[in-house]
Amino acid sequence: MSILVVGSVAFDTIRTPFGQADEALGGSATYFSAAASFFADVRLVAVVGEDFPDQHLEFLRSRRVDLGGLRRVPGKTFRWVGEYGFDLNQARTLETQLNVFADFAPQIPEAYRDSDVVFLANIDPDLQREVLRQVRRPALIAADTMNYWITNKAESLRQTLRLVDALLINDAEVRQLADEANLVQAARKILAWGPKSLVIKRGEYGALMIKNGDWFAAPALPLEVVRDPTGAGDCFAGGFVGYLANTMNFDNASVRKAMILGSVMASFNVEAFSLNRLRTLTYAEIEARYRAFRRLAQFEDL
Amino acid sequence: MSILVVGSVAFDTIRTPFGQADEALGGSATYFSAAASFFADVRLVAVVGEDFPDQHLEFLRSRRVDLGGLRRVPGKTFRWVGEYGFDLNQARTLETQLNVFADFAPQIPEAYRDSDVVFLANIDPDLQREVLRQVRRPALIAADTMNYWITNKAESLRQTLRLVDALLINDAEVRQLADEANLVQAARKILAWGPKSLVIKRGEYGALMIKNGDWFAAPALPLEVVRDPTGAGDCFAGGFVGYLANTMNFDNASVRKAMILGSVMASFNVEAFSLNRLRTLTYAEIEARYRAFRRLAQFEDL
Repeated sequence: MSILVVGSVAFDTIRTPFGQADEALGGSATYFSAAASFFADVRLVAVVGEDFPDQHLEFLRSRRVDLGGLRRVPGKTFRWVGEYGFDLNQARTLETQLNVFADFAPQIPEAYRDSDVVFLANIDPDLQREVLRQVRRPALIAADTMNYWITNKAESLRQTLRLVDALLINDAEVRQLADEANLVQAARKILAWGPKSLVIKRGEYGALMIKNGDWFAAPALPLEVVRDPTGAGDCFAGGFVGYLANTMNFDNASVRKAMILGSVMASFNVEAFSLNRLRTLTYAEIEARYRAFRRLAQFEDL
Repeated sequence: MSILVVGSVAFDTIRTPFGQADEALGGSATYFSAAASFFADVRLVAVVGEDFPDQHLEFLRSRRVDLGGLRRVPGKTFRWVGEYGFDLNQARTLETQLNVFADFAPQIPEAYRDSDVVFLANIDPDLQREVLRQVRRPALIAADTMNYWITNKAESLRQTLRLVDALLINDAEVRQLADEANLVQAARKILAWGPKSLVIKRGEYGALMIKNGDWFAAPALPLEVVRDPTGAGDCFAGGFVGYLANTMNFDNASVRKAMILGSVMASFNVEAFSLNRLRTLTYAEIEARYRAFRRLAQFEDL
């Protein structure tokens, strides 16, 4: 089945204690699309500048991502410069150049309006609702956001949340959004605003999901090599939403498998800079790592 | 089967955003004993002062903890004063009065020397080895330690680790002990020094175990009420070591169940100040919460 994703396509310059990347392919919609493409057809709506090279488009095309909604406009592509310390949990933003992304007004092509699933990557909540006004009754709407929108566009974000089925954010954002230190109470407060399920991303500690009062904890695989955490959250979303779009089954067992596939995609992505690990990744490797998550988490009745 | 535990019995004064406790029952060996007593016979070796009230002894006796090795000596009992902020992950020590604990030299009663399992709570690694010199071939030796000993008694701690089967410490201590930011590489380094297994406690993020190259991730139950995290690590150890002493089976399936029972005991303990939750806890409640952990962590093959 088909997924429409709307978000950023960018150049990232990243320094970690394990190396660096200069003007590498990045952006929330890019990471999401590459990850989700292993499971379903992805339609990408984003904007880039004249400086965006064909080779990056070719990579996304090789992953069968539909680029009919990717506009190339005069100006420069969105750029982000960030660094990580040894703990790799928190990025420090050194520079953000919005460039052509500053005037991004998502136009959903007619051919995309019947998408089965919509993923609203981390963009202005006003624009997230603009996207939803242009689509016809998707079976699942999932969204991400970030501390910037929680701080500066709280009311607009609340309006978007009313329309969203699944919200995927990190634990600090859960606490900030609900203004509540206890994660369980914070989650309950957010779910009362509209979303049917909340996925709480916790980096190296895994992810939690709450849906219909039922909690699920997905572990993170202990990894010997973590080079660059950039995009891990979007790859998680790609695996999670991608699998759900693949099966179009949103029952308890399916969303739990989707949580693990999200964790699988994130675990691969952090092994290399930019999207480099996803370039060579195979579905057989995804299946093998899913089995590694099973071995990691399994225990018997008492 | 029987567990010998050697550690502290103390008075704790604790402030959290959710209340406070003054001179409440605390200490690593106390928490461990109370938790482990649900699974096996516990023999406690520790020291208290003349100010230690009979009511606390009665509580431990009501949990069938053998107090034959608890010495009461002239002077005051060990006191700790600490506080927690809203995140509850890290205690801030405001005051430590070692009192009679400063001269603690563990004497293992003859009747305890054949204990099947030994737990060395967080005390000077010199004293941990003193304990091991006095016991006869226990089937399992587990130990805790803390940043203070890693910083100030590194060589002695390394000597103790040569003698230990299972080391239970938190993730910051793993990284500090190994001087290595990556947890997998840090764990491997520590295991090369002697322990057969390493249990990494991560507070609200659960716990990890590595044994024979095999990783297991135990989730933490999302809790709506967390009042006081003091003693959670020792309760975890009590559930973990207690269950292993109960079954005397250290295979893969058993140690995974033990990890979950450690998590279960910690999850109860944080719900109230001091050991108050353990005072009313029943084995039926422990079984019910084990099943809640199963529901929390379960997912199917892809």
